[in-house]
Amino acid sequence: MNSDQSPQLVDDAVSRVRSLLIEYVADKRRRAGGIDPAYVQLWDAIMALIEVGGKYIRPRIVIMAAQAYDSELTDDQIAPVAASVELLHIAMLVHDDIIDRDDMRYGIANITGQYMQLYEPYESELSERRHFANSAALLAGDALLSSAHHIMINARLSADIHHRLTDLLDEAIFHVIGGELIDTETSLRGQDSAPALVIAEQKTSCYSFYLPLLMGATIAGAPHADIERLQDIGREMGVIFQLRDDVLSVFADEQTLGKPVDSDIREGKRTYMVEQFYALADDDTKRQFERGFHNHQASDDDLAASRGALVSSGARAAVEREIDNRATRCRELIDQLSWHESSRQALDQLLTRCQTRSS
Amino acid sequence: MNSDQSPQLVDDAVSRVRSLLIEYVADKRRRAGGIDPAYVQLWDAIMALIEVGGKYIRPRIVIMAAQAYDSELTDDQIAPVAASVELLHIAMLVHDDIIDRDDMRYGIANITGQYMQLYEPYESELSERRHFANSAALLAGDALLSSAHHIMINARLSADIHHRLTDLLDEAIFHVIGGELIDTETSLRGQDSAPALVIAEQKTSCYSFYLPLLMGATIAGAPHADIERLQDIGREMGVIFQLRDDVLSVFADEQTLGKPVDSDIREGKRTYMVEQFYALADDDTKRQFERGFHNHQASDDDLAASRGALVSSGARAAVEREIDNRATRCRELIDQLSWHESSRQALDQLLTRCQTRSS
Repeated sequence: MNSDQSPQLVDDAVSRVRSLLIEYVADKRRRAGGIDPAYVQLWDAIMALIEVGGKYIRPRIVIMAAQAYDSELTDDQIAPVAASVELLHIAMLVHDDIIDRDDMRYGIANITGQYMQLYEPYESELSERRHFANSAALLAGDALLSSAHHIMINARLSADIHHRLTDLLDEAIFHVIGGELIDTETSLRGQDSAPALVIAEQKTSCYSFYLPLLMGATIAGAPHADIERLQDIGREMGVIFQLRDDVLSVFADEQTLGKPVDSDIREGKRTYMVEQFYALADDDTKRQFERGFHNHQASDDDLAASRGALVSSGARAAVEREIDNRATRCRELIDQLSWHESSRQALDQLLTRCQTRSS
Repeated sequence: MNSDQSPQLVDDAVSRVRSLLIEYVADKRRRAGGIDPAYVQLWDAIMALIEVGGKYIRPRIVIMAAQAYDSELTDDQIAPVAASVELLHIAMLVHDDIIDRDDMRYGIANITGQYMQLYEPYESELSERRHFANSAALLAGDALLSSAHHIMINARLSADIHHRLTDLLDEAIFHVIGGELIDTETSLRGQDSAPALVIAEQKTSCYSFYLPLLMGATIAGAPHADIERLQDIGREMGVIFQLRDDVLSVFADEQTLGKPVDSDIREGKRTYMVEQFYALADDDTKRQFERGFHNHQASDDDLAASRGALVSSGARAAVEREIDNRATRCRELIDQLSWHESSRQALDQLLTRCQTRSS
């Protein structure tokens, strides 16, 4: 395997993952045709999502970690593992959207959204139609979740490596489901729920950073010391990503971010920044904050008051300090990796992006 | 591996599968404790279902097929594969119950049902509470689906066998999801939907018979000719099982069957028997049938009229003929298997039970 981390080579590898995913889904779509046209529609709906696709951040991380060592790995061995992580991501998005009651993803109708249109001629009552559309999305997510395990067998790796990958994949699923459950329950349980950083670790770190880093390193035969460092690096990067996300969701320029910056405040989302706020603020500042927080009718002035309170209390600065401390620790760990210099730089750039991104 | 199919040895193997499942779930429950108490509750809910459990028909079939050959397999290799099939079954039940809007399974509250109680203090509005309870069940099913793939790695089989098992498992999931989707859509699309036997093959044959037979045979190193026969045997047995189910759901003694025998008629379920009825009946008989069919307000007399029409039209007899023809073909295939005599007898007994059961 060429261990050069030049952007062109990584882009080639990513487009190989994308082709593999499209071929894999096209094959299942073709086989669905042998069963019933209604089943073909489900794979059409899945294909629509795959074809638009996201940024392939997770496959990029798998490729980066796999290429960081002198190994005998071929691209044909790396691509199915990178594709597995992306399929898991899409499966989780499809099921998350059911839980979050969203009908859009990647700027198009998601599975539920597509089936809301498909079932319109058959069911006029909206909540009934939604139940059936969600049922189709539930089944699509199941097919994708199994596919995430299945597509890895194309990598033709040793039984031992395969076992370790299956273990990692299941472990990531175990964590992301825990994070998703706890996060969903925060809106039910309020203050009685888990700390925001626990949720960030479970929901974001485990499958978006930790899993792809460890999968790439595992197939490349990384030494045990690296595996341990990558666990910590993945955990820190996920938390940094989430903390930056929380700040952006409140303070970003809406145009640059590409999504609204009012909803977290209006919905009363209990982020780490909000936890810090309640630890730091005096009663006056709390009253100011609560003009907009958890208030669906909040005016622009109310929202501005809430934002002002997050700044004046020192909560926003506390989050920035937390991000920087974690990034410093993460850089120390990256420096200790036995990776090629160019790979360490690429990982460092990813960290910088998580730390300082504005969109 | 002892290839004796004595009931005692099979029961010992089944209880080993059950212990393995309980240990597996207990381990995840313990690890959930390291994350958050709310996540432990999800594994408690899963454990409640596992502890009550079903009849372990699918693990029994895996064990039967694995023991049908002179192989070097140990019980420790068979049990994880048999456990995988049972975990898949439970995952599918948990998600099916969301689709079917059922709150009970195995005589206790299912995951949704358990969470409807758990969330009662937090959400008084019933449809909102159901959304959150279904979300927990959705996540539980995802965890179990991944676990079905994951638990197999404990079998420590060769990379080649492991690939074939993963392929079989994913294929069965692909088919059962197709069957479930088409079946769900029958209530939306009516006559525009797939034939009942297609649904039976996808929903019942593939993962309840075909998958466990092929998994057991695969790990035991069955010859290719047997694998092909077992595909056909599994397909036929699943269809026979479903056809008998359709007859029992209308004509059985309610006490013996343990579930109501009115609902299929009242709900207008388009079984193979109903398809045969519409192909055979004259207009008078159709009018008689439709007094009860697809009529939620049907009286006992209306239901009796519908049952009478199914008999007088010859539809019921046509189903019995279909069952017997398929059973005859299936027996010929069983006779051709290179299985130990005692194993062939055990499979034949299973066929007889599918064919003639009264509950």
